[in-house]
Amino acid sequence: MTTPHRERIVLAYSGGLDTSVAIPYLADKLGAEVVAVAVDVGQGGEDLDAIRQRALDCGAVVAEVIDAREEFAAGYCLPALHANARYMGQYPLVSALSRPLIVKRLVEAARRHGGTTVAHGCTGKGNDQVRFEVGLGALAPDLRIIAPARDYAWTRDDAIAYAEANNLPIDVTARSPYSIDQNLWGRAIETGFLEDIWNAPVEDIYGYTDDPAVAKDPDDALITFEHGVPVAIDGCPVTPFQAIDALNQRAGAHGVGRLDMVEDRLVGIKSREVYEAPGAVALITAHQELETVTLERDLARFKKSVEQRWTELVYDGLWFSPLKQALDAFLAQTQAHVTGEVRLRLHGGRAVVTGRRSPASLYDFGLATYDTGDTFDQSLAAGFTTLWGLPSRLSAARDTRLVAATPSGAGPS
Amino acid sequence: MTTPHRERIVLAYSGGLDTSVAIPYLADKLGAEVVAVAVDVGQGGEDLDAIRQRALDCGAVVAEVIDAREEFAAGYCLPALHANARYMGQYPLVSALSRPLIVKRLVEAARRHGGTTVAHGCTGKGNDQVRFEVGLGALAPDLRIIAPARDYAWTRDDAIAYAEANNLPIDVTARSPYSIDQNLWGRAIETGFLEDIWNAPVEDIYGYTDDPAVAKDPDDALITFEHGVPVAIDGCPVTPFQAIDALNQRAGAHGVGRLDMVEDRLVGIKSREVYEAPGAVALITAHQELETVTLERDLARFKKSVEQRWTELVYDGLWFSPLKQALDAFLAQTQAHVTGEVRLRLHGGRAVVTGRRSPASLYDFGLATYDTGDTFDQSLAAGFTTLWGLPSRLSAARDTRLVAATPSGAGPS
Amino acid sequence: MTTPHRERIVLAYSGGLDTSVAIPYLADKLGAEVVAVAVDVGQGGEDLDAIRQRALDCGAVVAEVIDAREEFAAGYCLPALHANARYMGQYPLVSALSRPLIVKRLVEAARRHGGTTVAHGCTGKGNDQVRFEVGLGALAPDLRIIAPARDYAWTRDDAIAYAEANNLPIDVTARSPYSIDQNLWGRAIETGFLEDIWNAPVEDIYGYTDDPAVAKDPDDALITFEHGVPVAIDGCPVTPFQAIDALNQRAGAHGVGRLDMVEDRLVGIKSREVYEAPGAVALITAHQELETVTLERDLARFKKSVEQRWTELVYDGLWFSPLKQALDAFLAQTQAHVTGEVRLRLHGGRAVVTGRRSPASLYDFGLATYDTGDTFDQSLAAGFTTLWGLPSRLSAARDTRLVAATPSGAGPS
Amino acid sequence: MTTPHRERIVLAYSGGLDTSVAIPYLADKLGAEVVAVAVDVGQGGEDLDAIRQRALDCGAVVAEVIDAREEFAAGYCLPALHANARYMGQYPLVSALSRPLIVKRLVEAARRHGGTTVAHGCTGKGNDQVRFEVGLGALAPDLRIIAPARDYAWTRDDAIAYAEANNLPIDVTARSPYSIDQNLWGRAIETGFLEDIWNAPVEDIYGYTDDPAVAKDPDDALITFEHGVPVAIDGCPVTPFQAIDALNQRAGAHGVGRLDMVEDRLVGIKSREVYEAPGAVALITAHQELETVTLERDLARFKKSVEQRWTELVYDGLWFSPLKQALDAFLAQTQAHVTGEVRLRLHGGRAVVTGRRSPASLYDFGLATYDTGDTFDQSLAAGFTTLWGLPSRLSAARDTRLVAATPSGAGPS
Repeated sequence: MTTPHRERIVLAYSGGLDTSVAIPYLADKLGAEVVAVAVDVGQGGEDLDAIRQRALDCGAVVAEVIDAREEFAAGYCLPALHANARYMGQYPLVSALSRPLIVKRLVEAARRHGGTTVAHGCTGKGNDQVRFEVGLGALAPDLRIIAPARDYAWTRDDAIAYAEANNLPIDVTARSPYSIDQNLWGRAIETGFLEDIWNAPVEDIYGYTDDPAVAKDPDDALITFEHGVPVAIDGCPVTPFQAIDALNQRAGAHGVGRLDMVEDRLVGIKSREVYEAPGAVALITAHQELETVTLERDLARFKKSVEQRWTELVYDGLWFSPLKQALDAFLAQTQAHVTGEVRLRLHGGRAVVTGRRSPASLYDFGLATYDTGDTFDQSLAAGFTTLWGLPSRLSAARDTRLVAATPSGAGPS
Repeated sequence: MTTPHRERIVLAYSGGLDTSVAIPYLADKLGAEVVAVAVDVGQGGEDLDAIRQRALDCGAVVAEVIDAREEFAAGYCLPALHANARYMGQYPLVSALSRPLIVKRLVEAARRHGGTTVAHGCTGKGNDQVRFEVGLGALAPDLRIIAPARDYAWTRDDAIAYAEANNLPIDVTARSPYSIDQNLWGRAIETGFLEDIWNAPVEDIYGYTDDPAVAKDPDDALITFEHGVPVAIDGCPVTPFQAIDALNQRAGAHGVGRLDMVEDRLVGIKSREVYEAPGAVALITAHQELETVTLERDLARFKKSVEQRWTELVYDGLWFSPLKQALDAFLAQTQAHVTGEVRLRLHGGRAVVTGRRSPASLYDFGLATYDTGDTFDQSLAAGFTTLWGLPSRLSAARDTRLVAATPSGAGPS
Repeated sequence: MTTPHRERIVLAYSGGLDTSVAIPYLADKLGAEVVAVAVDVGQGGEDLDAIRQRALDCGAVVAEVIDAREEFAAGYCLPALHANARYMGQYPLVSALSRPLIVKRLVEAARRHGGTTVAHGCTGKGNDQVRFEVGLGALAPDLRIIAPARDYAWTRDDAIAYAEANNLPIDVTARSPYSIDQNLWGRAIETGFLEDIWNAPVEDIYGYTDDPAVAKDPDDALITFEHGVPVAIDGCPVTPFQAIDALNQRAGAHGVGRLDMVEDRLVGIKSREVYEAPGAVALITAHQELETVTLERDLARFKKSVEQRWTELVYDGLWFSPLKQALDAFLAQTQAHVTGEVRLRLHGGRAVVTGRRSPASLYDFGLATYDTGDTFDQSLAAGFTTLWGLPSRLSAARDTRLVAATPSGAGPS
Repeated sequence: MTTPHRERIVLAYSGGLDTSVAIPYLADKLGAEVVAVAVDVGQGGEDLDAIRQRALDCGAVVAEVIDAREEFAAGYCLPALHANARYMGQYPLVSALSRPLIVKRLVEAARRHGGTTVAHGCTGKGNDQVRFEVGLGALAPDLRIIAPARDYAWTRDDAIAYAEANNLPIDVTARSPYSIDQNLWGRAIETGFLEDIWNAPVEDIYGYTDDPAVAKDPDDALITFEHGVPVAIDGCPVTPFQAIDALNQRAGAHGVGRLDMVEDRLVGIKSREVYEAPGAVALITAHQELETVTLERDLARFKKSVEQRWTELVYDGLWFSPLKQALDAFLAQTQAHVTGEVRLRLHGGRAVVTGRRSPASLYDFGLATYDTGDTFDQSLAAGFTTLWGLPSRLSAARDTRLVAATPSGAGPS
């Protein structure tokens, strides 16, 4: 680690207008050197070398592109899969998962390059500022944080004007009417005409999924899990990254995983969000089904409350919190037997399980069947049923007794 | 109420083989009179007068058919809608909802006709025996309960032999390979080749839904809710029964609401179940969306735990339990503002929300928008973010401090 | 309502140094008229007329003392009793309960006197600022809020200097080393040497309780509840206020209800707090016991999660939130049968239940006894036990099977 | 392992009347050999060699006494301490903890001695039959289970008559009016005049505790925890067994840990139970306090739901269930930093924390203090408070808006 003469700011760099403008702006305003760090979490899109060069052209003293795709898949998407994480029953935490990894890599870059400040492009009304800053506070409380859009109240028009005035190498005309964030686990689309929640999405906002209404032949995928991890598709071994990537392609081709919702943001407002997460939705569907076969009932019931809390914590920026770590220990234990195969039919916007089998299955044909081979001893049922219902029966008898004893009109209302 | 000379057994009568055989069998075995009671909960199928006549032909001294369709819709399906009830995230409690209503009507019939025993056709390894008997224990603990299939270990073959030997007016050849239960809220199919959980369902098991893979034009339905109750479809006022019935038709035509799952039964085993619930799934989808717009965040988060517990209780036969009543009070309070409209596109097996609006909406365009009209004060965010993350930051700093203070290898494992 | 020429500030007035100084300070700084409002929530201590006069002497244009004791008891303490509310298992929400009532009365005073701003004396690191301001935001979002101690960074030394410089009629020498807040439901003591959490409290900090180590004869109190409300003590009818007040005296005389804890504040820090709540602790002890007799098991188990959430919400300043209202509906339903008597022995710092009886009791002597009169049918137990344990047995068998099938060392880690 | 010619029954042997009689009775009735196994879980009382000899005198072919005290302390009591396990907020699971260990040792004995049946002395209306049999089903589903008292409907009078008729070496006159179960973690007393829940306990039922009303000098104990485990008392290193045993003595001498409650049994009835658990209550009190200092707020809040579920599972006989194992993983993670010292004053029936300190403390004097050294930045509070309350404010504004728009009398009631 070198100690630079000037303060060094490590900037979470996306290659887009706002963070490109932030390079010369922060350098000027704070008399600092800017280190631009782009983290590849599978967002695809533009060539990463081009992004790196743009950062240098805008004045960054260092520009790095970090390939974190496998780490993102294994360390961030898989835990979300184990939690079957769908915020508000829908959103699979796309951006919420990438933020803590980006934070971790930014902190490493800050240590490597002598940075004392970290900058990010988030606004003051979204969730991502919280995810960045709470994560930074946990991993590196000594680093100062700057969010130009929020702290200096920069608007997009300010950024365009600054780019033009300073001849920055950015195409300011290519403005999308939407705000997009995407990574391996999915893609988020917001703002624009979607801010009217009575409007339906239109086809051209989607990038990861084809129109499910267009007829195609169905695609059957066989997904093999070991201890909750997808390890093969159609019998071919895959890494976590490959599993998600392959299902993004295959499920995306059938329009699986489009989501349109009104979402409760951490900062206290509701916002309209559209997501595409074909691979995530397909994998969660298959994983949940394998859990129904391999998890015991009480465990499955309680796990739902853990899943919900885990999902809320991650959505709310608390990836590095102690509760998250303890829930992870619970979840890891639950995956011990989530091993087996799920057959998934991808078609017409739906990922439908058509078969499941597991060496760790708790489904017992002999106990379940009504045909020859039935091993269930029905004589046990009467005792079970009577004692199961005893508290309800005593309580109902009490209510009846009290109503009988109460002069009319004098009972508790 | 008359006091009969012989014991009277009130039998939950379906018109099928097992309960038809039970009429003469119970009369003979117990020297009793049998009162057959069929409750119409929207199961459709055979003409109810024919069913009534069959009971008499089999020897019932009284046979009644009770139209409970609107009561079922309003008093049983709507509470399930308010709870967005999907057992294990899937099953909308079709049979579990009808049992307590049938129990209630059986008890009334027993009082009316001087019955001292109630009989039902459930087996000893299913959930329905529990729902019947716990319900009966709560409403009428004085009534004796008989379940011939369980208590006398009657098999289907026994029933067929008895019917043939006694010339009962039942077509014993018309045997379905499946066990079916259906009502207004949905249809359950089990047993047969479905007991191999690797087998996919085949098209001919379905009765409420068309094949979603067959191309059709989409159908847009506009559902209006007041306080959580669907009161109009496409602007036309509907009763609860009509709302569910209409959506069974329209959503069923697009193959919406097919479910295929491995289910944790109350008696401790896992079973394979296939369901169709087009109206239920369409309504729950719309209702959940309207809740995202009208329920405050903390309420919505806690409501999920109430929904899960309510659903488990009802699945587990505890409709009449005090906890169920207290959860109902919670749920009723949550529906006060669930008023508004949802536009639902029914197509290709999916019911997709394409718009929502409400006079009680908590979505605030001014706070949400990133365009002109933004009223969110971003300067508040830094303080919020810092204090929100303070416990995580303190905890992470503690961990770092302890690791630094610990000789290598001596930390907590 | 009159429209004053100058802005009117409604000040939550306690009579103490800080809020007395705030009267002339706010008047000067903002060119405003100050309306001082003191709400009597049973805090006792100084004469309220003296407090009212002091406000006028300090320059208030209006000074009001509002007797809200019965409302506080019935509308705020009783719901806390129904929730058996003990934050972190200990703190019975003393201050957290009074804040929403004070807020409500401040808003009414603002409307009555044409106030457009509300001022309170809370600091920026406590919970009470949140309770005041979130409550005000819910009841009267149009009112501006000022917290001089926080917003102008006033310290106690500033206040003393200002009081002396302006000859305010306040005895600035009578400074307690502790910060005290008290009302009918209890008394809170913090700061000073208690900030070292290794220090034990000393006897002279207590005001509501005598030393439990001093020998006295025990005092047996018989508390009668109807629907969760204490309606008589030793057979004499009482109002809610009288019930709490009487038990504050009697339980306080035996040192009941002293609490010493490290508490998680909403703003993200831990603080040391000492409380005295003799009446609250005695009543909650009796009420919980009556619930064990009158609440069905599943209800009692789920109620614990509702109690915890209710308590956290109220602690966290969310008295007026929709979730709080829905939990209230749940809790109200649970109290329908919490009727009966509890005998409580008060002695040596402990409130110990020595007897309980109820017309709504679910304790059934016949089912419970092992002596003559036993009505429990033990033959039901084997069936119940077998099916109750079936999921565990299947799961253990699965684990055994997999271990047997796994080459050593190859199992899930 | 030897293969006996006759069936071998492994009997859970206590040395008391019922299990002593069971030895010859089972041998006769089933033509079997009886292996008597007594497990020492710290129950104290009679000399274990005498118990062993009595089994042989009654006809056991083998009699074993197994010292499982340290295993019980470390493997069963400590997990309960980590869960702060108090069923219904009171009962520290005394008997519920020993049953799974006894089951484990019985199974080992059955394997060692060629037993194919296990017998226990529980009745059919208690919890312990479930704990024994569900545990046996999990660990050794192949073993047959017999519970003579339940399965053969043996009463105590039957046992006395049998003992007298067969000259068994048991003093049948020494009958206690109570049913007692005790081990290292506590002592349970039930039946007799306690079955009238209006009766207070009398002094002579207690065995582990002295009368708290008798004046004594207080005793201050300093308990040191590492990762949730008590490792020293007053600075002297202790094993888990020694820690509990020492506190049973010291806290018992001051009457700490007496509990009197109406309890919800698993089999659906309520029963009256009196417990003494001086060491358990003292340790849980200290442990909980150390957690308030070392656990982060969100973790502490969620842990309460885990504690409750863990406690219910263990009470309900599901020690070996998969959910219990997953909750254990959660709890283990939470104890990583529960390290430090707690000073506990034992006196007059109370164990009161008077100090706590920890190298892993999250209590930050600088953030907490109101004196010199305050490091809390109060300027952050306004932003936090506003956004924290934003959902409540929006919701309240919605309610106000709707009320204003509703013609009187037409709103939702």
